[in-house]
Amino acid sequence: MKIIRASIIGFGSVGQGVAQVLLQKKEEIQKKGFDLKVVAVADSRSAAIDEKGLDLEKVLKSKKENGRVGSETLSGLEVIRNVEHEVVIETTPTDIETGGVGLDNMLTAFEKGMDVVTSNKGPLALKYGELAEAAQKNNAKFRFEATVGGAMPAINLIRDTIAGNSIISIEGILNGTCNYILTRMMEEHASYEQMLAESQELGIAETDPTYDVEGIDAACKLVILANYVFGMKATYHDVDVKGITSITPEALSLAQSEGYVIKQIGEVKDGCIQTSPRLVPESHPLAVGGTLNVVSVQTDLAGTVTSTGRGAGSIETASAILSDLISIYRED
Amino acid sequence: MKIIRASIIGFGSVGQGVAQVLLQKKEEIQKKGFDLKVVAVADSRSAAIDEKGLDLEKVLKSKKENGRVGSETLSGLEVIRNVEHEVVIETTPTDIETGGVGLDNMLTAFEKGMDVVTSNKGPLALKYGELAEAAQKNNAKFRFEATVGGAMPAINLIRDTIAGNSIISIEGILNGTCNYILTRMMEEHASYEQMLAESQELGIAETDPTYDVEGIDAACKLVILANYVFGMKATYHDVDVKGITSITPEALSLAQSEGYVIKQIGEVKDGCIQTSPRLVPESHPLAVGGTLNVVSVQTDLAGTVTSTGRGAGSIETASAILSDLISIYRED
Repeated sequence: MKIIRASIIGFGSVGQGVAQVLLQKKEEIQKKGFDLKVVAVADSRSAAIDEKGLDLEKVLKSKKENGRVGSETLSGLEVIRNVEHEVVIETTPTDIETGGVGLDNMLTAFEKGMDVVTSNKGPLALKYGELAEAAQKNNAKFRFEATVGGAMPAINLIRDTIAGNSIISIEGILNGTCNYILTRMMEEHASYEQMLAESQELGIAETDPTYDVEGIDAACKLVILANYVFGMKATYHDVDVKGITSITPEALSLAQSEGYVIKQIGEVKDGCIQTSPRLVPESHPLAVGGTLNVVSVQTDLAGTVTSTGRGAGSIETASAILSDLISIYRED
Repeated sequence: MKIIRASIIGFGSVGQGVAQVLLQKKEEIQKKGFDLKVVAVADSRSAAIDEKGLDLEKVLKSKKENGRVGSETLSGLEVIRNVEHEVVIETTPTDIETGGVGLDNMLTAFEKGMDVVTSNKGPLALKYGELAEAAQKNNAKFRFEATVGGAMPAINLIRDTIAGNSIISIEGILNGTCNYILTRMMEEHASYEQMLAESQELGIAETDPTYDVEGIDAACKLVILANYVFGMKATYHDVDVKGITSITPEALSLAQSEGYVIKQIGEVKDGCIQTSPRLVPESHPLAVGGTLNVVSVQTDLAGTVTSTGRGAGSIETASAILSDLISIYRED
């Protein structure tokens, strides 16, 4: 059986999720005609390397007990440069201002002709064109389903499932925290502040919720879709963003009395990218509740195709990474 | 560029839709790294054959003007047996009692090592196991996204987009006619008979609506999902079917007053296949209106993933066939 050697660069919640999923899905992967051997894992201060394949249970245990994956002091970038393998699973923390270490990691991998599968939005929201070009030039595969809404199918839905269609526009709910807060405000006739506090207590919103509630996270995902699907050269600064902080329970009640809900909808259409609160009919496929994400793609042949799923979570994000890995290497 | 020779066997509305789509998408297909050359088209009484590639506009015109695709008298089966090509696009009318000519066409194609892409539910609802085995034995590809809900992603969503996930259960609305009638009954507080008449006038329901409203069409699609996803050996006789003919506008109003809608939901779970009217919360992803189809897949890693789209229409069905063709032969 074909053996694919991989590294996991970045070992926070998503990287650890990937390790757990790869342990759990060893047989499932082999059924697709290949074996995935993780030869290196790097976090921000250490690395574990074994060219015969790491014991991922040990690496997970070391991370949990010692806060580091191993005894090596190589950085992720050095692992990519010096350890022989075929695919980099890039799961370092996202940095939407500079692209962070992720950007260098990906570019270096492509220069070496290695494939990259990533959940890291920052580098793609800033430099998608450069990354895609580097991948193509070096005949490397580049997959990033996990960057747009975790386990909700978006990128590969467009690439594979409805392949051959021309895409006219894309709209959707691309941030689960905003969706949760708006859904709960409507259910409880409560204020934004009350439901933000609830979602912080539940761990759905961060202590500093700006990134989510001001629409920045959704803007990054829209930029990735815009650049991938329409070949735009946008960054998240090009997105017209309006967040949910000024929505009132009265506005939600009024909408509801007319058969509508208010949802934070992002859209890519006619070269414009925007995200803002909008009225959506209750029976519309975009009107999903809770923390769900949803994306609706308007096409020339298939009409409108909509997909809904969990937009966050370490295992959900790892699921998208697993599907990307299978899509590159499957032999069945 | 790699040239793939194809036949279109069956030239009713779907077969003609495929011809139109292939004409329209010639460049799009070439961008995926191959050229698709249709060397034969067969309807129920004639065939057109050209090993250098047929002019599909001429074939469409001939069908429209003369009711036949060409002057040859070969049957579809004879075309498959005697004309050299790589892929059979099987779009003959479905026959859920015997599998019809489609079953022979597909089995013969596989015996010759040819790939098959089809929209024809009957053969799969009756003999999926036999067909899949024949394909595998002869190292042939077998794709059938178009058999389950037209352009709504289902089969390939599970195969590709969420690959690696174990599927726990599947549920969905798999018949657009039922969905239309129930949606309109609720909107208009009208009877089943009134809305059946409306949908017949609009061409949404057939003159004899039994196949749709009694749940037989949905049952066939559920069987295909059950056999493909769970390796079951079911036929449509194994489905517990309850149609929509006894739903009253009063029941719909009562549901609505409690925040629910009534939808015809099919389900595959724990080895059981059933379809029946059910209460669904208004904000649930399955609560889509009009003629839309929707399928919700419960998985181990990704949670529940839902996809919504147009379940019928010749171009929509041809879109699914196009995506299947691209998924087999793409080089990018």
